[in-house]
Amino acid sequence: MADTKKMSLICMSGEFDKAIAAFTLASGAAAVNYEVNIFFTFWGLNIIKQKTGRRFLGKGFLDRAFNFMMGGRKTLPLSRLNFGGLSPKLMTGLMKSRKVATLNELFDASLALGVNLYACEMAMHVLGLKKGDFIPEIRDVLGVATFLELSHGGETLFI
Amino acid sequence: MADTKKMSLICMSGEFDKAIAAFTLASGAAAVNYEVNIFFTFWGLNIIKQKTGRRFLGKGFLDRAFNFMMGGRKTLPLSRLNFGGLSPKLMTGLMKSRKVATLNELFDASLALGVNLYACEMAMHVLGLKKGDFIPEIRDVLGVATFLELSHGGETLFI
Amino acid sequence: MADTKKMSLICMSGEFDKAIAAFTLASGAAAVNYEVNIFFTFWGLNIIKQKTGRRFLGKGFLDRAFNFMMGGRKTLPLSRLNFGGLSPKLMTGLMKSRKVATLNELFDASLALGVNLYACEMAMHVLGLKKGDFIPEIRDVLGVATFLELSHGGETLFI
Repeated sequence: MADTKKMSLICMSGEFDKAIAAFTLASGAAAVNYEVNIFFTFWGLNIIKQKTGRRFLGKGFLDRAFNFMMGGRKTLPLSRLNFGGLSPKLMTGLMKSRKVATLNELFDASLALGVNLYACEMAMHVLGLKKGDFIPEIRDVLGVATFLELSHGGETLFI
Repeated sequence: MADTKKMSLICMSGEFDKAIAAFTLASGAAAVNYEVNIFFTFWGLNIIKQKTGRRFLGKGFLDRAFNFMMGGRKTLPLSRLNFGGLSPKLMTGLMKSRKVATLNELFDASLALGVNLYACEMAMHVLGLKKGDFIPEIRDVLGVATFLELSHGGETLFI
Repeated sequence: MADTKKMSLICMSGEFDKAIAAFTLASGAAAVNYEVNIFFTFWGLNIIKQKTGRRFLGKGFLDRAFNFMMGGRKTLPLSRLNFGGLSPKLMTGLMKSRKVATLNELFDASLALGVNLYACEMAMHVLGLKKGDFIPEIRDVLGVATFLELSHGGETLFI
């Protein structure tokens, strides 16, 4: 038991600051040999969309409209004081100038360190998204039962 | 230890999307034989109010006003892009048309599968709510110490 | 193992209601002999700032502006229905009149019960904050790896 180190994140928030928190935790844990699983659902799916800007994805009018408004990794809002998307850009500038890893760098580091990314089947179904809308690094599309099997015995955080 | 499967959710957010996440997790975990406890506090209490619309509950002017604005299960807002309550209705429409369980269905499934619902004593006290304001399926009114006893040894998520 | 009771909170939200939830959990767990660690990051850092009002902290224009807007413990907003900061004040009034511990009381109780407070190194770096900007009770400034060591084997919640 003492050697089992596992961290699973349910990433539901598609906010810039919470995405940074998720990937900081994920890459940090993977770097010290944790098995790390991230399960993206609802707003969190925006983080792993193939196209990082706003796109009309989905089948019907409603999901196309929602997906456009929800956007992708480049358009994640700050959870407060977003100022129409200006703040995430300023924040990234601050991070660069202070040599702190940016969201993109944390994301790449997480992948390089073997963090497993999963997409939530049910949320995809509601939003009309399919596996091809996401980056190819997504390991699988899962439901709750499989996620529980993966996360069991470790620490699970809801972000 | 290996057989102990327990999940406890502290459901503080009274948002539509997070309530769906909570009950998807709860019903999914209960379906694979987890013991599941949900502890509703603050905004989360809106989800388990007996009357699902807006009601003036409480003793004084302030809690009556707050409870009216906080609403019930029918008036939970989406955490973003709520559009004055339109989005949760559209989302429920999408879920129905795609045969994904709606919030009400997930809620009923959770109860049918034996998920234990608890209300937070302190938050009820602050908001002037009493046990009779909630659905009768609430198992008990608890404080932190009792919740910690219930959740110990399992996975605990803050939603 | 059965005796190890540990709870670690990653407190990223600098919202009034979530801060109350964090310190209610922390003081409640510490009161029943849990080891409790709180790791403050991003908005959460506002809760532990030495000056509880709005201050221009940091080095450059941007962090000074952000820190001013982010404020301190006295200016935490309610996550919804904030009404320009009126609601947290009304809520504190309600808590006092009903003899429920206020945020400041929960905070003091947590410290008195031995809850360990930590500040996130990376977020401090981005926001231009230094250890001296925080209350002296902060035990240490940490990165993710050290936090994971502290939290391992207990329950970890993201708030």
